[in-house]
Amino acid sequence: MAESNVNSRLEAFCDGVFAIALTLLIIDIKIPASETINTTNDLWLALQHLFPSVFAFLLTFIIIFISWVNHHGTLKLINKSSPAFIYANGFLLLTIVVLPFPTALLSEYLFTDHAAPAVVLYAAINVLNAIAWILLFRAALKPNPLTKNEKATLTARAGQRNGYWALAIYTLCAILAFWFPQAVAFLLGAIWIIWLIYGISVKAE
Amino acid sequence: MAESNVNSRLEAFCDGVFAIALTLLIIDIKIPASETINTTNDLWLALQHLFPSVFAFLLTFIIIFISWVNHHGTLKLINKSSPAFIYANGFLLLTIVVLPFPTALLSEYLFTDHAAPAVVLYAAINVLNAIAWILLFRAALKPNPLTKNEKATLTARAGQRNGYWALAIYTLCAILAFWFPQAVAFLLGAIWIIWLIYGISVKAE
Amino acid sequence: MAESNVNSRLEAFCDGVFAIALTLLIIDIKIPASETINTTNDLWLALQHLFPSVFAFLLTFIIIFISWVNHHGTLKLINKSSPAFIYANGFLLLTIVVLPFPTALLSEYLFTDHAAPAVVLYAAINVLNAIAWILLFRAALKPNPLTKNEKATLTARAGQRNGYWALAIYTLCAILAFWFPQAVAFLLGAIWIIWLIYGISVKAE
Amino acid sequence: MAESNVNSRLEAFCDGVFAIALTLLIIDIKIPASETINTTNDLWLALQHLFPSVFAFLLTFIIIFISWVNHHGTLKLINKSSPAFIYANGFLLLTIVVLPFPTALLSEYLFTDHAAPAVVLYAAINVLNAIAWILLFRAALKPNPLTKNEKATLTARAGQRNGYWALAIYTLCAILAFWFPQAVAFLLGAIWIIWLIYGISVKAE
Repeated sequence: MAESNVNSRLEAFCDGVFAIALTLLIIDIKIPASETINTTNDLWLALQHLFPSVFAFLLTFIIIFISWVNHHGTLKLINKSSPAFIYANGFLLLTIVVLPFPTALLSEYLFTDHAAPAVVLYAAINVLNAIAWILLFRAALKPNPLTKNEKATLTARAGQRNGYWALAIYTLCAILAFWFPQAVAFLLGAIWIIWLIYGISVKAE
Repeated sequence: MAESNVNSRLEAFCDGVFAIALTLLIIDIKIPASETINTTNDLWLALQHLFPSVFAFLLTFIIIFISWVNHHGTLKLINKSSPAFIYANGFLLLTIVVLPFPTALLSEYLFTDHAAPAVVLYAAINVLNAIAWILLFRAALKPNPLTKNEKATLTARAGQRNGYWALAIYTLCAILAFWFPQAVAFLLGAIWIIWLIYGISVKAE
Repeated sequence: MAESNVNSRLEAFCDGVFAIALTLLIIDIKIPASETINTTNDLWLALQHLFPSVFAFLLTFIIIFISWVNHHGTLKLINKSSPAFIYANGFLLLTIVVLPFPTALLSEYLFTDHAAPAVVLYAAINVLNAIAWILLFRAALKPNPLTKNEKATLTARAGQRNGYWALAIYTLCAILAFWFPQAVAFLLGAIWIIWLIYGISVKAE
Repeated sequence: MAESNVNSRLEAFCDGVFAIALTLLIIDIKIPASETINTTNDLWLALQHLFPSVFAFLLTFIIIFISWVNHHGTLKLINKSSPAFIYANGFLLLTIVVLPFPTALLSEYLFTDHAAPAVVLYAAINVLNAIAWILLFRAALKPNPLTKNEKATLTARAGQRNGYWALAIYTLCAILAFWFPQAVAFLLGAIWIIWLIYGISVKAE
């Protein structure tokens, strides 16, 4: 492996996991069973009833894609590796890989009276994801910084601070979701759209 | 990451998504249930009834493979990156990743009396795909061109114009599919075969 | 993209497809439903009844892995590209990607009285695979050879000849499978084990 | 392909397989069917009943991730290739790719009276995995060492010895699992956590 990029295989492995997690989401959206469809109108209605699935799919798609963009940006700051950094990446991948489960749960239960467990779990995975980012930046910063240069160190520190903010916000969401699941679900959607816009603007600097 | 190819990780990620979307298609073609098969002839007949599934599978396979070839050709024109370009790629991937759903819908409903919603949705995804290509070329061309040289800029502009043509044609298909779903489905098949031949001849120049 | 390896993205894409096709095979082996299991012995018996699934899984795993090894070996001979070569690779990937379907069919029907369609289809996919290899070598050899040097050209020609032999053998298998499905299934298994040994010995030269 | 890294495509292919195997695990954790859920409390209870699935998922996730880390570390020792080495990698991938099946079996049967077959099978796959690592190190060490230098040879020999230890331990686990399945399942969990800690400490040297 070229010494110029010690993390190229880690990148390739993570890219694979992100790409598969993104692509697998669609297989949980099932087509309407043909036995229940007697007219063309039935099929249009059945497709409309997939709205919660589409909402959950798009939300998780955005989360995974932004996570990949951030991962891509983060690894550009790094030119060394360590076991702690590799295992922090493994934990981050764990929080990505599990997403199809809470996504399917959200699709099924968001617009029912029992939405709370689905939204709490979904927010809890976001909490774990924020923890994984904090651990990843921590492993990149100490004991020996893996960052390329001083500027990269500052960017990594800013990323770690964002991680703590995310941790606080998602924990609050997870708690509020016990009482206001639908509101929290849409709040999570709004937060990720803000992260999307923020991500674009920060990286354009 | 080597500065000589700033998009190598974006390429790797997109390759992963295209490859997985291509490979996942087959899992929606289910084998005939053994309870319904009493003679060898039953099994031959059951396999023949998979024809709509095979048609939809091949159409989507061709779409995804050509999209990958075009993506491969497009990224060869580019040697810089921007947030808008990365997110335009994300939107393109979204329009690829969702394809298994309309493909399965087409398999199930193409030769029924309720084919319209399936074909409209399939054409609508093609519309979104055309929009994604337009956005991707737009992000590659301005405000600061990401293209390698003047020749690459001209090729990207031609690609953008093709995107507008595709947008017009697929929008028309989506509208016509409300009344003539089967005809539009075969028209879409014919269009993609033309894109296939066009793609080969253009790239051979 | 580095000009030193014009096919690196094609390789990455094909690697992805081979890797996914290989890994998806296992999801067609379903665990025994817990409702049918009353004693530990029931579970042991249920696992034994998975033998046809395991046979089909291993056969397809070997086919895909050997195809990847051969693809890897073939692309080492090549240092140029052409549209025909890219599309020949696409057709090869098609014959790999569809394999989970005949594999599942073989699992379900190999040891029933209606094995013929399953084995005929499985052999037919092997026929298509042989045709794909012939097209791929043909695209590599003419009109302008894409091969690195004279020695690579000779190896590619030998590969093409092997493709014609494979085409003849699998066509014969597909025809014989109408009358002797089980025998042909085991013959196919034996052929691929020979290809395995042959592949090792040839490449070790 | 750059001569500086003859194994780059093997690495990419293996990365793909590891990444997909890791990501596919989640699709075997099914969400509770909405027909069985009448109150929010029902859904909380149904999620709690997923504990065996989560245990099996996490165990297999850890196994696959550590295997990838070890594979990554092993291929850094190597700068040549051989057919035996490639096919040993293929066998290793086989033992990774099959993991979703014993994982699903463990999820379903771990806390029933018929856990023995599930745990025996799970341990048996670990036995095969240990054998694959021994074959891989053997292929790397002889007849002609593929290792970079003397230090890499020593590390590879240590890896091979670990493989023999793993073989002995998992064989014992597989045998004991006939009588004490639950205890062995938790022992396997404990062993992999030890491997995790060992892997970090060794690589940090």
